[in-house]
Amino acid sequence: MYLDLIVIRECLWEWVRRLKTYDCIIVGAGILGLATAYHIKMKAPNDTILIVDKFEGPGFGDTSKSAAAFREFFYSRANILLARSTIDFYWDLQKNQGIDLGIKWIGYLFLMSHSEFESLVPILKKMSREGIEYKTYLPEDLEDVGFRTHVLKDEEARLMNLKNIDVGLFIPRAGILKIENIVKFYETELKQLDVDIMYRTEVKGFILEPTKPIGIPEEPFPWQEIKVSGIRTNRGTFRAKRKIVVAVGAWCESLLNPIGIGVPIRPKKRQIFVLRAENKSLLKLLRSPKFNKEEILPVTILPRGIYIRPEPSENAFWVGYADKLGRAYTLEEDPQPEEEFYIYGIYPVLTKYIPQFIDIRPINAWAGHYDINVVDGVPIVHEEANLIVVGGTSGSGIMKADALGRIVAATYIGEEYAELYGGIKIRAKDLSLSERRIEPEKLVI
Amino acid sequence: MYLDLIVIRECLWEWVRRLKTYDCIIVGAGILGLATAYHIKMKAPNDTILIVDKFEGPGFGDTSKSAAAFREFFYSRANILLARSTIDFYWDLQKNQGIDLGIKWIGYLFLMSHSEFESLVPILKKMSREGIEYKTYLPEDLEDVGFRTHVLKDEEARLMNLKNIDVGLFIPRAGILKIENIVKFYETELKQLDVDIMYRTEVKGFILEPTKPIGIPEEPFPWQEIKVSGIRTNRGTFRAKRKIVVAVGAWCESLLNPIGIGVPIRPKKRQIFVLRAENKSLLKLLRSPKFNKEEILPVTILPRGIYIRPEPSENAFWVGYADKLGRAYTLEEDPQPEEEFYIYGIYPVLTKYIPQFIDIRPINAWAGHYDINVVDGVPIVHEEANLIVVGGTSGSGIMKADALGRIVAATYIGEEYAELYGGIKIRAKDLSLSERRIEPEKLVI
Repeated sequence: MYLDLIVIRECLWEWVRRLKTYDCIIVGAGILGLATAYHIKMKAPNDTILIVDKFEGPGFGDTSKSAAAFREFFYSRANILLARSTIDFYWDLQKNQGIDLGIKWIGYLFLMSHSEFESLVPILKKMSREGIEYKTYLPEDLEDVGFRTHVLKDEEARLMNLKNIDVGLFIPRAGILKIENIVKFYETELKQLDVDIMYRTEVKGFILEPTKPIGIPEEPFPWQEIKVSGIRTNRGTFRAKRKIVVAVGAWCESLLNPIGIGVPIRPKKRQIFVLRAENKSLLKLLRSPKFNKEEILPVTILPRGIYIRPEPSENAFWVGYADKLGRAYTLEEDPQPEEEFYIYGIYPVLTKYIPQFIDIRPINAWAGHYDINVVDGVPIVHEEANLIVVGGTSGSGIMKADALGRIVAATYIGEEYAELYGGIKIRAKDLSLSERRIEPEKLVI
Repeated sequence: MYLDLIVIRECLWEWVRRLKTYDCIIVGAGILGLATAYHIKMKAPNDTILIVDKFEGPGFGDTSKSAAAFREFFYSRANILLARSTIDFYWDLQKNQGIDLGIKWIGYLFLMSHSEFESLVPILKKMSREGIEYKTYLPEDLEDVGFRTHVLKDEEARLMNLKNIDVGLFIPRAGILKIENIVKFYETELKQLDVDIMYRTEVKGFILEPTKPIGIPEEPFPWQEIKVSGIRTNRGTFRAKRKIVVAVGAWCESLLNPIGIGVPIRPKKRQIFVLRAENKSLLKLLRSPKFNKEEILPVTILPRGIYIRPEPSENAFWVGYADKLGRAYTLEEDPQPEEEFYIYGIYPVLTKYIPQFIDIRPINAWAGHYDINVVDGVPIVHEEANLIVVGGTSGSGIMKADALGRIVAATYIGEEYAELYGGIKIRAKDLSLSERRIEPEKLVI
């Protein structure tokens, strides 16, 4: 009986929604779609918004698969601004508004050889000018923490062509957060702002219409000026009076290719393996007091790019590696972690630098996608034919989501500049394809 | 008996080729692959080259589907240099070396409204500085030729939101050519240069190897530095000692996605319809003496972008239209022209501006793809992990092929600058993704 009532209520709501025309339709209730809806509401409070998502809840796509770490340590000035202002916004919520987002400023620690550090020096100088702080640690400090720095004593490591760790580069303005709390924050706000969200609603295609219709059913013709005016979904057709935002991350290509909108965003599978700190030496590593007030190991990046992200609440480490050449650009509807990837891709290097992990097997694992901007590694906010695409976050979308939401909102209402949290302004079209003006990123992890 | 001998000879050759390791493997015997092989041979005469192609002969893919027109009328300086030097190279062959490439300098004629012309003025000024000449024609001149300029007298045209033709913008340094003759030229040269070409040879995948192998069969591992070292095909596996060039146009994504190399190149279907000049008024249009010494109508672009490319040897016009929004980015293995596209997409506009085409139906038609650089419309020459991609010619590859071949050759041998025909030098990495330095194109037709 109770369930029946729920079903009836759902049906009624769906019927109401179909009758309603929205000003704005946002495809995707991941972190980017949610932040976008929030900031459009801030800018245009009277505009009605519908968010649709194919999954069962907010952030259920690749948002939930994230490593949930953040840094403002980027090469590209655009990326620095996006990340810094987003993190400041999140931090203000947690520190001053009493909303726990699980932010811990544990920092990032890059472990590298002398030659790698040398090649990074010009980049670090440039980043210093952008206000990014760092400090370095010596091998003996790192040995204290529990890293094996002099791996070349080991014949196997030499054969593997590994290098010694000569420098630990520590970035204090970085850390970890709880992505589900951030999703919850935006979702709660959106409810109060009367934004409608429909889950289990998959976009099958877009409605194209001539900007100046003749009024015959075969429209639009190829020679007409065409705009995107609505979406077709498994739960009916919805039209947007003003604009449509596509915030679908890895699904970008498969949604936009059919209507001939081209953005250089491709999906690549990413995996995270959970390793329990199940012995004293791993607990000592996890609770290392050397780097931050939290007395937690920073998010650590080993010489080959394998990263270790502490999850102190579970006494665990999340370990991942963003493999490049050889890992296909392809979309999997339900990506699964690959045991062999841990065994052959991560374990051999991980245990050379941190022998405490020898014989440790993952207790859990999951997989998602990066939505990679294959050209420059900086996010894209691009408007074309009434449709705004936001994506290409290349593995660092959560830490830039709030700023990107503001830039989409500015694009939506036609403002030239978007004001990010903290007051810095950025020209919205700097992130477009047609008038793009950004430095390519060099630090995609 | 004779056929048997041919088969045996083929088998023997294939056996010899498999034993042979090549310095360079080029995937694709279209115009880009052929020009590339030619210029690598010019730069590195002792390097052995194998070209493989899935089709039965040279240029049998989208090269043969081209509209076979050329212009140096581009906005982007890079595109101007690529097209100008390639056309000069072709023209030298025809004029001074006695190789008939079917080049006719009939020019391009853009028909447009005042407001379209006004918005083009800053672009034209910039192009003038690059040495591009143009002249304009008045509506009365154009009426003489056979165009209907004042379409707004027609109620249907008003309903269709068409505009009057107020200006004819004529570009003399442009024309048509015979693509099969250019293909033949390169192919003949390559035979003399001992370049091996294998047709009906489809690449199924690439061989990835560590740059510093350990020597165990599971290699390469994700944490190793990896390079592309060979190809797997339906006719066996081939390795390149030096580098591999991928010059596959529309097939770029489907070949490179699986190994995780991302280039912003997408295929879009393009169609050409052949209309016979079957009455006096169409013959008069075709043989218009007003514009050039050939006394042939220039390649003409109508206000909505429909183009008419004369084929005087057949007393015909090739008519096409590069539809944008609404035309999917997708690859068809055997793309077919769509009758409805002519009927609804081309005919209504074509006959408003050139009523002589009323009731004329195509006597022939074909379809191919553009390989579109979705970001900036300028070709890409990008090296990554021992593999050089050349593509993204966005519908103007034939008129840039020779220059692109030279840039790939410079990249292949590691020269910073490529010298184009005529002596102009261009920094090879200006066309790469990692150090790209070009102006985006604004005139993709």
